[in-house]
This record gives sequence, C-alpha cells and structure tokens, in this order.
Amino acid sequence: MKHDPLELVVQDIAEEMAQALDRGRVADYIPDLASVSSDHFGIAIVDMEGRSFVAGDAQMQFSVQSITKVFALTMALGAVGDGLWKRVGREPSGSAFNSIVQLEWEQGIPRNPFINAGAIVVSDILLASHEPSAVIAEFLRFMRMLTGDDTIVIDEQVARSECETGNRNVALASYMRAFGNIHHPVEKTLGVYFNQCSLSMNCHQLALAGRFLMAGGINPDTGLSVVTPGRARRILALMMTCGHYDGSGEFAFRVGLPGKSGVGGGILAIVPHVASIAVWSPGLNERGNSQLGTLALERLVQRTGWSVFEPN
Amino acid sequence: MKHDPLELVVQDIAEEMAQALDRGRVADYIPDLASVSSDHFGIAIVDMEGRSFVAGDAQMQFSVQSITKVFALTMALGAVGDGLWKRVGREPSGSAFNSIVQLEWEQGIPRNPFINAGAIVVSDILLASHEPSAVIAEFLRFMRMLTGDDTIVIDEQVARSECETGNRNVALASYMRAFGNIHHPVEKTLGVYFNQCSLSMNCHQLALAGRFLMAGGINPDTGLSVVTPGRARRILALMMTCGHYDGSGEFAFRVGLPGKSGVGGGILAIVPHVASIAVWSPGLNERGNSQLGTLALERLVQRTGWSVFEPN
Amino acid sequence: MKHDPLELVVQDIAEEMAQALDRGRVADYIPDLASVSSDHFGIAIVDMEGRSFVAGDAQMQFSVQSITKVFALTMALGAVGDGLWKRVGREPSGSAFNSIVQLEWEQGIPRNPFINAGAIVVSDILLASHEPSAVIAEFLRFMRMLTGDDTIVIDEQVARSECETGNRNVALASYMRAFGNIHHPVEKTLGVYFNQCSLSMNCHQLALAGRFLMAGGINPDTGLSVVTPGRARRILALMMTCGHYDGSGEFAFRVGLPGKSGVGGGILAIVPHVASIAVWSPGLNERGNSQLGTLALERLVQRTGWSVFEPN
Amino acid sequence: MKHDPLELVVQDIAEEMAQALDRGRVADYIPDLASVSSDHFGIAIVDMEGRSFVAGDAQMQFSVQSITKVFALTMALGAVGDGLWKRVGREPSGSAFNSIVQLEWEQGIPRNPFINAGAIVVSDILLASHEPSAVIAEFLRFMRMLTGDDTIVIDEQVARSECETGNRNVALASYMRAFGNIHHPVEKTLGVYFNQCSLSMNCHQLALAGRFLMAGGINPDTGLSVVTPGRARRILALMMTCGHYDGSGEFAFRVGLPGKSGVGGGILAIVPHVASIAVWSPGLNERGNSQLGTLALERLVQRTGWSVFEPN
Repeated sequence: MKHDPLELVVQDIAEEMAQALDRGRVADYIPDLASVSSDHFGIAIVDMEGRSFVAGDAQMQFSVQSITKVFALTMALGAVGDGLWKRVGREPSGSAFNSIVQLEWEQGIPRNPFINAGAIVVSDILLASHEPSAVIAEFLRFMRMLTGDDTIVIDEQVARSECETGNRNVALASYMRAFGNIHHPVEKTLGVYFNQCSLSMNCHQLALAGRFLMAGGINPDTGLSVVTPGRARRILALMMTCGHYDGSGEFAFRVGLPGKSGVGGGILAIVPHVASIAVWSPGLNERGNSQLGTLALERLVQRTGWSVFEPN
Repeated sequence: MKHDPLELVVQDIAEEMAQALDRGRVADYIPDLASVSSDHFGIAIVDMEGRSFVAGDAQMQFSVQSITKVFALTMALGAVGDGLWKRVGREPSGSAFNSIVQLEWEQGIPRNPFINAGAIVVSDILLASHEPSAVIAEFLRFMRMLTGDDTIVIDEQVARSECETGNRNVALASYMRAFGNIHHPVEKTLGVYFNQCSLSMNCHQLALAGRFLMAGGINPDTGLSVVTPGRARRILALMMTCGHYDGSGEFAFRVGLPGKSGVGGGILAIVPHVASIAVWSPGLNERGNSQLGTLALERLVQRTGWSVFEPN
Repeated sequence: MKHDPLELVVQDIAEEMAQALDRGRVADYIPDLASVSSDHFGIAIVDMEGRSFVAGDAQMQFSVQSITKVFALTMALGAVGDGLWKRVGREPSGSAFNSIVQLEWEQGIPRNPFINAGAIVVSDILLASHEPSAVIAEFLRFMRMLTGDDTIVIDEQVARSECETGNRNVALASYMRAFGNIHHPVEKTLGVYFNQCSLSMNCHQLALAGRFLMAGGINPDTGLSVVTPGRARRILALMMTCGHYDGSGEFAFRVGLPGKSGVGGGILAIVPHVASIAVWSPGLNERGNSQLGTLALERLVQRTGWSVFEPN
Repeated sequence: MKHDPLELVVQDIAEEMAQALDRGRVADYIPDLASVSSDHFGIAIVDMEGRSFVAGDAQMQFSVQSITKVFALTMALGAVGDGLWKRVGREPSGSAFNSIVQLEWEQGIPRNPFINAGAIVVSDILLASHEPSAVIAEFLRFMRMLTGDDTIVIDEQVARSECETGNRNVALASYMRAFGNIHHPVEKTLGVYFNQCSLSMNCHQLALAGRFLMAGGINPDTGLSVVTPGRARRILALMMTCGHYDGSGEFAFRVGLPGKSGVGGGILAIVPHVASIAVWSPGLNERGNSQLGTLALERLVQRTGWSVFEPN
C-alpha cells in the first residue's frame, strides 16, 4: 500500500461496490445459492502484522464452494506429497469448470486441482481408506485450525442440494473411475467433495484461513508450519494460473494476484508476505467468477500497488 | 537474492547445465534451428542497478522466435491501445502453440497474443496500412532502442525458411481471415510475422531488451517510458499465464516468474523491480519450451528467492 | 443371389473364415466376453420364403450386446412414436461408441440411438414409469415373439459384469441427466440398459429376430405388423449410417447393407425384401466391429450381389 | 415406381414445391449465389430406359458446387485407384462441411472425399504434375462425356468469387500441406478445386451426368464403362453415408437414397438400376442442404417406393 490507510481503502471500495449497477448473475443451480441477494458485498484483509480490515458484509456467512479446493489440495499434499501430481495436472484448462471434454482427451487425468474434476480426484485422495464423514470432520478441523475459529461449519442443507443436483459431478467422477483415476466408489468420493464445497464462512474467516499462504506456509496464530515455503509458493502459482477457471488469464491481467473463486461469489486472493484478502459478492460474471469481487480486487490493487507484477 | 553474489550463482548454474544429460530435443522444422547443438547454454541477468551477470554462451546469437511476441505485443498496444483486446483474448489456451481447433470454436479470435494465432493477429495490427518491410524496420528500431544495441538484426535465412515451412501459420492466418480477424492479405501479415520471429539476439541483448518490463515500463537507458506501469504489469501477467504455451502452468509452478519462451531455446523471465533474465539452451521439452532454460531458472529462483510468490 | 445355392455360399464362407489368420481382438472389459475364443465363426441367413441357411457356429450362443439397440429402438418408437427424436439425433457421430465429447457440445442430446449415449436414452424412454425388471421382461417377450423362440434369455452373469464395469455408461447417463435428457434415476435406466445388452442369442435366432426389418415391418410368423413399412425403412437407414459406430462408413463402403454390430462379435445385416443375416465372430477390428463378421458379409455380398447399391 | 406415371409425379412435386412457404436460406458467401431467388425449383429424372421426366426450372443453370465432388472423386479413382484412400477417409465427419477441427485430430487426413478438405485432397490428386487449367479442361471433358452435352461450362465469375472468398479453403489446404497431405502449392490445388466447384449445369444435365452411377458404372450413351460395377457401388455407399455433410443421417432417414448436395441448392440422387435424379432449389436448410430439394426427394420416394431400404 502506498498512500491510503487500509481502513479507508476497504471502506471506499465497499461504498463503490454498494452502488455498482452491473452486479452479475447469482448462481441458481441450487435454491440455497439462488436465494442469496446480489446486493451483498463484503471485504476483509488480514495483514502480516495480524491486523484485520473489514467492510460491507464481511461478517455474513456465504457458501465457500470452490475456494475450499485450495485447502483440500493443501491437506492432500500433506497426506500424499507430490505423488498427487501423477493423478492431477498443473495446467490451465482452457475450458469451463465442469467440462468433460478434456477428460476424454487426456484419459481421465484432470488438468489441474481447481477445476471440478481435479478437485474430485483430490477428494478421492483424501478419502484414502476412511469414511467420508471422518474425512469431512478432519477437513473441518483443518479449517478451524487455520482460522482459529471453532464456529466454522458445513451447511448441511447446501450439501444435500449439491448432492441432489450433482449429476455433472457424478459424470466426471464416474468417467475418471472408468480410467482408474478415482479409487473409491463414486458416491463416497463425491460425499467428501459435496460436503467440502458446502463449507460456510464469512470474509473475515476466509481471509484468516488464507494467512498461511501469505506467510510462506506458517500459521501466524501458532508459528507452526502448515506447508513448506516452497509448497506455499507452488500453491500460489496454481492459484494464479488456474484459480478462476477459464477466467484465470483475465483475473491475472486485471488483478495480478494469486486467487481462487467460488460459485458462491467469494474470492480469496493472496499478496505474498503482505496480506490475505477475501471478498464476497454473489453475482457472477460470464466465466462464473464474482463480478464485483473481481472489480473490488482490481480497485484494491490500484490503490495499494499489491500486484505481484508491480515493480515496487 | 539472499546469500549469493549473482556472479557466483550464474557461474554455478552454467556449470550444472553444462553437465546435464537430459538436454531435450532441438527443434528441427527448419535447418537453421536443427543444426544448432544442444550443448549450448547461456544465461544473462541485468538488474535494476544496471549491472549485468552473464555465464556460458551468453554472447552467442540464437533465434529469438516466439519471445519476440512480447515485444510485438508491446508495440501493437502502443499503436492501437486496448482496442487490441477485441481481436485477441487473454486466456491460456489449454492446447498446443499451433492448434487450430480453438479458433474454430471461438470464431477466429485467438485465446491470447502468445500463441501463434494471436501473434499473427498482432502482426496484422502492426501492419496497418504499411508495407511489411517498413513494419519490420520499425520493429528492429524498437528492439535496438530497448537494448541500446544497433547491431541487432533479423536472420534473413531463418525468415526464408520460416516462410517456406510455414503452412500451419498460413492455415491459421487464412482461417482467421475467413472470420474477418486478419485485415490484410495473409502473405503480408505473415511477412511481418515470419521476419519478426527470425530476430537474432544473444542472452545479454535479450535481458537488456526486457528491462522495461522489470522497471515498470521505463527504459533504464533513457529514463523514458516505453509503456505505462499498468501496461507493463499486465504484459507480465500475460507472460505468467500464457508465456509457455501449454506448459505455462508448469513454468509458473516450478519457476514462479512471468516468462516467455521461444522454439529457438530462449526464455525471457522478469523479476519485477529486480531483474531481467535471459537463458538459452536449444533443447526443448515435450511442451516446446527450453529444457535446460527452465531448469536453470528454477535453480536461480531457488538460490535467489526471486519467485513472485515468495513471501520475502 | 445370382449363381450359387445359398447352402454352398454359407458353407464356403464358414470354411474361409475358419482359416483366416487375422481374427481381430476379443473384447476384454468383462471376463464373460474375454473368455470367448476368437476361433468361433457362425453365419445364418433367413430369406423371405422362410428358408434358413446356416454354417459354422450358428447355433452357439453369444452376447448380443449393441445389436439389441435396434430392437430396443423399435420398442421405444412403438411406445412414444417419433417424439423420440426430440431426445436423440439421427446423425453419424464421427467418434467412438462411448465418447462423451459430443454430448457436451450438443447439450446432452446424443447423435443417434446406436451409440451408447443414445441407447441409454432409449432405455430411459422404455422405462417410463415402470420398474427395470418389468421393462426387461417386456423386452424379452418382444425378442421371443420376433424369433418365435421362447428359450431366449438374458445372461445374468454378463449383466452383473456390465454393471460392475459400467463407469463410462454411468458417466454418460449422469451427464445427460444433468442436461435433463435422462428422466429416471441413473441406476434404473442403466438397469434396463445393462440387462438389455446382456441378451444371449445364436446366429440363427438373431437372423430370425431381424426378419421384420427384411419384410417391411411384418413378422413372417404371424403376418402381423411389428412396425409400419416406413418405420422399418427408416430404421434400416439408421443402421446404414450409424450401425457400426465410427466404422459405419467403412461398412457401407465394403458391404453396402444396413447392419448393426455388437461388441460380442455379432452383426445383423438386412437385405430388404430378400434376407435377414446374422454373423458372429468374437474378434473385433480397431473400430470395435467383428473383424471376420465384416469380411464374411463382404464375401456374401460379392457372391450374391445383395448390396443395396448394386444395380440389379 | 408403383402407381403413378412419372410425368405426373414430377409435375405434382414441382407444383407442391412452388407453393412451399419455408424455402430455406440462399447461400450468401458470394454474390453469384446470393443473387439467385429462392423461388426456383427444378427436378429431372432419367431412367434406365433413357427416358427423361422434368418439371419446374429443370432447364435453368445453377452452380453445381459440391455435387462435383462425386465426379472429381470418380476421375481421381480412375487415375490413382484405391491408393487414394491412403489420403482420404471414408467415414461421416460428424461436423460441418468446412470444419478444421477433425483435421487436427486426425493429422491432416480428411474424413471423406465429400467434405471440403477431402475434396481438396482429391483436387490435389487430379493435379498430379499438370497445370490447373489442363486438369479443369479434362474435368470439363469428363462432364461433357457423361452428359453427352458439349455446352457445359464453368462459370468463371463464380470461380473468381470462390477464389476471393476462399480463406477457409486456403486454411484447410495449407493445414493439410503442413501435414504433407497436399503435394502441390496450395494456390494450384485450390485453382482446380474452385474451378471444379464453379461448374454450371441444369437439373436435366446433372441427372444425365449421374447415369453411370445408376447403371453399374456404364455410360448408357456409349455402353462403355466409366467405372467398374464395384466402384460404382462404393461411390454410392459414400454418397449415402457422407453425401450431405452433417445432415447425411437425416437425408438417409428421410429419403433413403445415395445423394450428394451442393451449396448452390442442387442434389443428385441415385436409385440403383432405376433412375438418376437431380433436384434444385437454392434455399438451404440449417445443415447447408437444399430445403425443398430434400423435401421433393422425400415426396418422390413416397410416391415411387424408390428407397433402397424399401422391401419391394
């Protein structure tokens, strides 16, 4: 940040976003998402000094959805190490989040862990020989540890809806199972996946959860390592190239930060060694990423110079 | 850089690369590239203080090829501004550098300016109402200005070979012309493109040419602005997400710097506000990017902590 | 037929096939198919006069597999009429029998009823509000009626194996359900599909079952109409253009008859108003169609002049 | 034909077509096609006895376009025999007439000789070591011989327009040349192709030209063989499975005859040993085939029972 106190910056941004007219389109594939108003906007920044700056609906719970893919990947890398990359690629997909075309061309190996197919493989890895409920409990403990907040829960109503409408994900999982890249029964693997996606958080909690990625792998609350610095760096690289589905190039172009979006309208963005940022606004752009969330991050980076491509 | 004097670092890297056994495969689609030995390796770093650190074959000329796409894009943005983005996208392609499939799906709009189709549109924009020879002369002046070196030339033998073997590029250009996205006769547009690609430089010159991207758009020789800071930042973002064809994710994962590779075996990588780096080794990996060039940059980043995702 | 008595022709063909060296490759995705020897070859011809000509293993049971798609389509057209074509196309697919790519491009509408996806929609139509077991019982009655043979059964061991290894078909069905083109739970629809495919018949029975297509829709045993003449004609047209997956063009080119193949090695081919022909040999060519079955039909047509494209 | 004298049938059909409201959309990519009124309809039938039955605008010249692919294929098979099939496939494409996607997947080998890419390869084969003008002269002689009509010419205005707007075809040819499947300079090969497509005929002439396919390869005027009976049969098979681009399945389903359409609105259809039929109406359906031409053939087959799938 160059000139502005961050309090003022987040306030300004929240005010501008409140007045935005083109707010995108709220996801409507499940009632729990469709019923959220596109009027909401929240932002939270947590910095290396442990300070928090919040504005708007930063304390309102929303469905974290695909942003959980970052945390599930972190857990799975902790469990199986870089062997994970034999089952998932590291390249942008060049297609929509739920495309099945690429899976046929690449024989069941998803392009990266942040598209649905890749995240389902990550769920399958986490499942190992456990029951889905045990894996989800472990995932929840992980998220509570990262945030230092034991109130974080999974929205079971959302999880049920995801499960009921999840035919495309059943298709993806079954298809990968046909290629041998899903090792457990599809319903178990998807049990993990659907519950993980249904995590409920607010912007402040999400920014707190992202701190280890800001801080070279260290959880600032405990000083303990969540991942090695090298792994933190590589997760950020994946967020930069693959974190916004087929809008990842555009996000890098406009914002210049590693980030991960979710269909609930949230985005987690990381300024290495500086800040962990969460924004939320439910309306999505045509690529499925938060319309105002992206705009807010663009404004923030303009005011602070926080782009990783900014030479100062 | 943390501990090592850069002289030592580049020397170490050059020595390690000299002994590497798996050197990739030299491009063989034209004799001028096929005849280059994969034994070569060069590295050059120019920093913000204007110091140069070179090792290996850093003074040996090589065919810059697709790395010129960064400079041509810079020129074209200077000429027509962001209107350029109506004719070229900003997303990773998810496919090979010369794929024509995506062009059919997206009605003649290439995914980004760093795949062949996108760079051909950029050539078409540069052509405007001029003759190809005038555009190439202008391009050469631009490159000489960026490097402060008037000895830089285009290898006309390479240009002729490119032209003779360029049927895929004729196909790409003709196809886009059918969609109205190439405005000039295909042979003129490709005249610009083939000559531009045939630029000959050495590592040191290439690192010098990249300085304006390191320095927020300023040419350090003159203190004058080549592009605005915002545009420099956005070009770097494109290099990060799209600079290595369908290996861009892997390069970001391993190296963590914005970079652009060429089929001649060169890579230009930028550490914002810190360094402009050029490496060269003719052997390519399976994605068409320099095998040892990538490895050398990975080593460099390990030694220096220069990844943009490194939190310190 | 021009010169040869058919007894002699089928005998000659069976002898030639017995000595063929390149017998293709037996399907191995389920044990019940993998364990069948590629040494087998059978042929049966039933003509308009009700005469039967058989040779080789014409009385040996084999898994009818995809040839059942012709009969299931016939039943479904009887049930819902041409409204069926709103949910299934009538074009060759230009891709493999189990490709999912086309489904994404065409939004869940399979290209034709003879690729897996299309046949699964047909199963879903047959299911209507019934239980899978009732639909299968009805299908079996239909096949027994067509052949006049009550011994025809479904191989339940094969059905179980199909179900266990059917992940690709689960993927296809789930994917189409996501687009709203499968109306029932995927496991019920596939329950019908897997059982239908597991029908067990011999060549003679299969040729008998095909008689209504030879005879303008009339069952010769009863003189009653199975389908209208126009519908019989249109089913034959579909067999011609789509009956051999991505080898349909080749089959038409070599044999010139409407036909339908199955992965068990059977082929049903129809000479309108002349003959219903079934051949069987388990080894498949690279397109998944019976290697010797195709060759045998080519020989038969050469001897008889039965191609629909033959001008006499 | 069952009941109706053919004079009456063609007259009835012409009258019905004159009153049709949905006449499709005239091709507009070149002025010479765009300026033709969709009001036109013509039909001509030539039978084995040499009788001609014509109605409507059967004597009006139109641009034969892709229907010439049948005749060019015939010539090329005569020149190089079945070796032609090493360079062109025999399967329906499952995609549009000018798609380039499949060429990338199948490494420059077009799926069949009746899509543009395949026909361009056929032109390249005809070119051999000759000049385009000599090949076109030979092609014209062939067409005049088949019809017994020396007035048949190529519309040079159309040929020029095709050439000027032929960027997609340049793309296809250049792309295949990159794969080594076009042996001559693209402009020469396309010189043949564009001129061939610009052949001008009327329905009666076209029906006459198709007689050798009706008559087992024999030219009825001379009694001499144009192709062997087997080759005639195989060309008809290709017309059945590939003659209407991505509407071939639909044409077979509705009409049940081997046919070939052109973007000028013509269709040639063959009833083996019975009739050669040409229809023409410039308005096209969404697959690029004549809207009323298809309907007229459907009516004709309903009245005559001429479908090859009709059992009597």
